[in-house]
Amino acid sequence: MEDNLIITEAQLRQFTERVFLAIGCSKTHAALATDVLLQADLRGIDSHGVARLSGYVRLWKKGRLNATPEIKVVHETATTATVDGDRGLGLIVAPFAMEIAIKKAAQFGSGWVAVRNSNHFGIAGYHALMAVKEDMIGYAMTNASPLVTPTFSKERMLGTNPMCYAFPAGQYPPVVIDMATSAAANGKLEIAQRTGSAIPNGWVQTAGGLPSTNAHELKQGGSLLPLGGDRQHGSHKGFGLSATVDILSAVLSGANYGPWAPPFVAYLEPHPNPVGEGLGHFVGAMRADGFRPIAVFKEHMDNWIGRFKNAEPIDANQPVIIPGEPERLAEAQRKANGIPLNKLVWDDLKMLADELKINHP
Amino acid sequence: MEDNLIITEAQLRQFTERVFLAIGCSKTHAALATDVLLQADLRGIDSHGVARLSGYVRLWKKGRLNATPEIKVVHETATTATVDGDRGLGLIVAPFAMEIAIKKAAQFGSGWVAVRNSNHFGIAGYHALMAVKEDMIGYAMTNASPLVTPTFSKERMLGTNPMCYAFPAGQYPPVVIDMATSAAANGKLEIAQRTGSAIPNGWVQTAGGLPSTNAHELKQGGSLLPLGGDRQHGSHKGFGLSATVDILSAVLSGANYGPWAPPFVAYLEPHPNPVGEGLGHFVGAMRADGFRPIAVFKEHMDNWIGRFKNAEPIDANQPVIIPGEPERLAEAQRKANGIPLNKLVWDDLKMLADELKINHP
Repeated sequence: MEDNLIITEAQLRQFTERVFLAIGCSKTHAALATDVLLQADLRGIDSHGVARLSGYVRLWKKGRLNATPEIKVVHETATTATVDGDRGLGLIVAPFAMEIAIKKAAQFGSGWVAVRNSNHFGIAGYHALMAVKEDMIGYAMTNASPLVTPTFSKERMLGTNPMCYAFPAGQYPPVVIDMATSAAANGKLEIAQRTGSAIPNGWVQTAGGLPSTNAHELKQGGSLLPLGGDRQHGSHKGFGLSATVDILSAVLSGANYGPWAPPFVAYLEPHPNPVGEGLGHFVGAMRADGFRPIAVFKEHMDNWIGRFKNAEPIDANQPVIIPGEPERLAEAQRKANGIPLNKLVWDDLKMLADELKINHP
Repeated sequence: MEDNLIITEAQLRQFTERVFLAIGCSKTHAALATDVLLQADLRGIDSHGVARLSGYVRLWKKGRLNATPEIKVVHETATTATVDGDRGLGLIVAPFAMEIAIKKAAQFGSGWVAVRNSNHFGIAGYHALMAVKEDMIGYAMTNASPLVTPTFSKERMLGTNPMCYAFPAGQYPPVVIDMATSAAANGKLEIAQRTGSAIPNGWVQTAGGLPSTNAHELKQGGSLLPLGGDRQHGSHKGFGLSATVDILSAVLSGANYGPWAPPFVAYLEPHPNPVGEGLGHFVGAMRADGFRPIAVFKEHMDNWIGRFKNAEPIDANQPVIIPGEPERLAEAQRKANGIPLNKLVWDDLKMLADELKINHP
């Protein structure tokens, strides 16, 4: 059973901002980083919200995260750019990059920005949805700490490397496809660990490359598997998607890719011979009206959503879920009733408060 | 056992061109359409090569395919465009669109083209690789006949909707991720049908939405499953990817999306109340040197490829496969030794020759 405490959005927001201010972030940066984390907690993606807060602080303590970065464009064409995040929080570096993409798209129809020298950027959906507010299609991805094996390998070479597409609609809320390219994200393993349950086959393998249903397998040198799980079920596709994220985010930007990607946890050292700088992201925006009039596009998006919602269900009690719908429902619910925090996360935040000498949440 | 005949590339190319000329295509179009189909046969993607030739001819006979289309741009910004394929062969409409994307990318850094009123475009990889030849990152996708169910549904709502990313490298050949977003493409079912073997769980479900290992399930009203297979193994991700392809290719362009997508087989009628025109594609190109100097990008691509090839294998005899590698090896082998054609495909081509009164291959 999960043991949760409830906290209001306002309280959690205030506390999180205090943490970022305490490590030296500017007011603007603290507010933005908080907004990104809170959106994860509000949208029910608990693994990517304040559960990560102490992780960022530990990286800062290690000198791997710069609280006052000078983020800048280092390479540019009319519709492409590369941004150097100066070891800043991905939570603020990625929105900086997305703003450039949106500006380019407003002027030329589309904009694409690769980012290097950054850190964990929270949920991809936050950044992609920035574009949707401007009636654009948003695109966001990041590479991450190596935990996932390519098909046929037992070596951790890739992160859970999420990719996100977000599409504006009319009457309906946006369609948001925000997914790890691994079979399961780490957060799902953590839930199984806490509840002591076995995990499905196809999520992880042992250090030797054998199938496993042990939720603790990663602590014993095992690895996550790409979407598809095994070759027969298309793990080469999950590997291909993950490779795409790695190449766009890091090979293109000048960040560390593959097994060189720096670990999120501060107790693991980054690779001694890096091939680039920090973690990498890739974001993009395309004006929907660069292809057809916006009203027509939105009308057809609504028709698409309505039709898919009504696709004949296998079980009448479980209709088709439109991507982004569960997160939006969680957000409405949590804005009204507060955010449930796992007891371990709550204790972690209290420890953090003591450490930084700020008020508890 | 497969019963194959061997034909040289030159013979097959000559015959295929004769077929396209016989239905009224111009010399240029016949040569281009042939090149796209032959690349599938050469690269070992047998389901998307001349095995489809009679299918195109049947669509033409039905009046659903225009052999002399006036393909044109109907909407445009500096880096985006929408193309109307005038019911032409996707095999020529998609390269037309990709040329526009490449031209825009050359001028502005990136180019993105949505296509409507088209037909089946062959392998996505052909179109994406056009960009790679210009040192650009290539992107190509298409929607397709509805055969795939969303998670929790038993209704065929989506095609196998392939997406392809292609990246130029230096010493190594390009990395080409070209994948159906379903758990398995139709071609794999056809192989199991011919050999009379069962298929793995997670590829198809029955008309009622139950798991099945019957390779003939689709003929009994069953459906293909999205990549991931079931909810627990991430089928919502496969559904999300397929939805992305459907929206970019068809909602954005003005083609038919979801269950309205016209069937490839001529004996099935298109939807009586279409929501758009024909099938849709989406292609794009980004200059790699829009992000960092091309020599540096290629050097790191080579480093990425080399490192992943050497990722520790589970079985020493089965190293990690770089996406695009098997297709490239097949191409070298088939260019040298000829293309093996399945007996059924061979007979189909002979029948086609008789029908069109042209010389047999």
